[in-house]
Amino acid sequence: MPIVYFIGAGPGSADLITVRGARLLGQAQVVLFDALADPALRDLAPQAQWVDVGKRGYTDGSALQANINELILQHAAQADVVVRLKGGDPSIFGRLDEELQAVIGAGIACEVVPGVTAAVAAAAGTLRPLTRRGSGRSVSLATAMTRTGDLHATRTADTEIYYMAGKRLGELAQRLIAAGWPGSTPASAVSRAGWPDQQHSEHTLHTLGEASAIHAGRPTVVVVGVGASAVTPPSAASPCAASIPPDARPCGDAPASTPPAV
Amino acid sequence: MPIVYFIGAGPGSADLITVRGARLLGQAQVVLFDALADPALRDLAPQAQWVDVGKRGYTDGSALQANINELILQHAAQADVVVRLKGGDPSIFGRLDEELQAVIGAGIACEVVPGVTAAVAAAAGTLRPLTRRGSGRSVSLATAMTRTGDLHATRTADTEIYYMAGKRLGELAQRLIAAGWPGSTPASAVSRAGWPDQQHSEHTLHTLGEASAIHAGRPTVVVVGVGASAVTPPSAASPCAASIPPDARPCGDAPASTPPAV
Repeated sequence: MPIVYFIGAGPGSADLITVRGARLLGQAQVVLFDALADPALRDLAPQAQWVDVGKRGYTDGSALQANINELILQHAAQADVVVRLKGGDPSIFGRLDEELQAVIGAGIACEVVPGVTAAVAAAAGTLRPLTRRGSGRSVSLATAMTRTGDLHATRTADTEIYYMAGKRLGELAQRLIAAGWPGSTPASAVSRAGWPDQQHSEHTLHTLGEASAIHAGRPTVVVVGVGASAVTPPSAASPCAASIPPDARPCGDAPASTPPAV
Repeated sequence: MPIVYFIGAGPGSADLITVRGARLLGQAQVVLFDALADPALRDLAPQAQWVDVGKRGYTDGSALQANINELILQHAAQADVVVRLKGGDPSIFGRLDEELQAVIGAGIACEVVPGVTAAVAAAAGTLRPLTRRGSGRSVSLATAMTRTGDLHATRTADTEIYYMAGKRLGELAQRLIAAGWPGSTPASAVSRAGWPDQQHSEHTLHTLGEASAIHAGRPTVVVVGVGASAVTPPSAASPCAASIPPDARPCGDAPASTPPAV
């Protein structure tokens, strides 16, 4: 009896997959993967047939999705262990529901292995926790763009993260301000979160539009609100904090991850 | 020069940590861990001194937190590689901001390794994606309980996940209904998400209160809204779907994870 494992590859570098996901890749006969996955993940399943199903970030792609669903079923009819490898976490903006429907509908056993989603990778890579004591109790994850191509923005959580909005950040900022966020609200744009070449830029909503050029052509998540601001020591006058030269990479801020904030 | 790694252990079983987190644990001289971490994680750092800092789920614990911050600094003064191992992901409800403040304030280098947060583990373990095509574009993560012990509930996202609300789910349901959710809204309660003994119960807001007894004494996340309902095949009359006996573990629904829904 075949089994399909839906595995979250994590947001970037291959070593952000879970140990469980890595182990199950080693058992796969077929791996269906998206375009954004780290090629180094192939080393975890050299024995498997790797099939690029070619999904790249946001796409209307209903036809594409139907093809992917069909491919999963076709391979499950011929292989005992099929892995559907998805960027980030399968349950968040991964269209897992559609693939599960197909697999469940066909009566095929499956299992979902969770992963690291881009929002928390961006938080880790910029040392900006999404929740903050006292001021940041709620976090919202959303896609800015609707299927019809409209931009949607809200002010519902202390920290809001928008996936897949890289090209239209000026417009997103306008909508956020219209939704009630002050123009001075901190915003943090992180592209290729979880990759060695992650880039990060700091903004307010007034200047967020500039991030589209900085991160052009790179998958980008935007953090708005409490979780977008840098963590500062209790006392800014702390001699220790003051003693850190800006280029000393305190707290893992790799240069690539922090170009001069705009 | 010492470095402190804040590593997300994932929500449950040791193999839900990332490959990177596992590798860095192998380099640690000291590991400061919370009470909820899987003891099997110790096998990843047998060489290290393991220090239980004793945090268990929700706690006001400001004094406790200050002690943890102090412990991190003390160990960083004596060891080159200190790991602060946190359940789930460090950036979500992990009080990472307070520990980062202490470490940054002391001028100590650090890095954050993201992890799998309980919400996505619950989604994976119950095959209920948090986002759904067309109907589920936004996800909110929140703690139901404020520091003052009040319960807080909203209706701001298509799918809302509440952490650490296990004891007062009846009251939470009332507040959700007061916030505008219909009493018939699906709610899914998952305790010990990501563990072999994960338990799952299905409810509406009208019956969510019953989940407190079902999951008593176990860390529980509650999913409300679109993401709380089971994924159903396009045609319920699908002969394949119909052919799955309830106990055949289709799609990885381990018996332990699905006691008779309430």
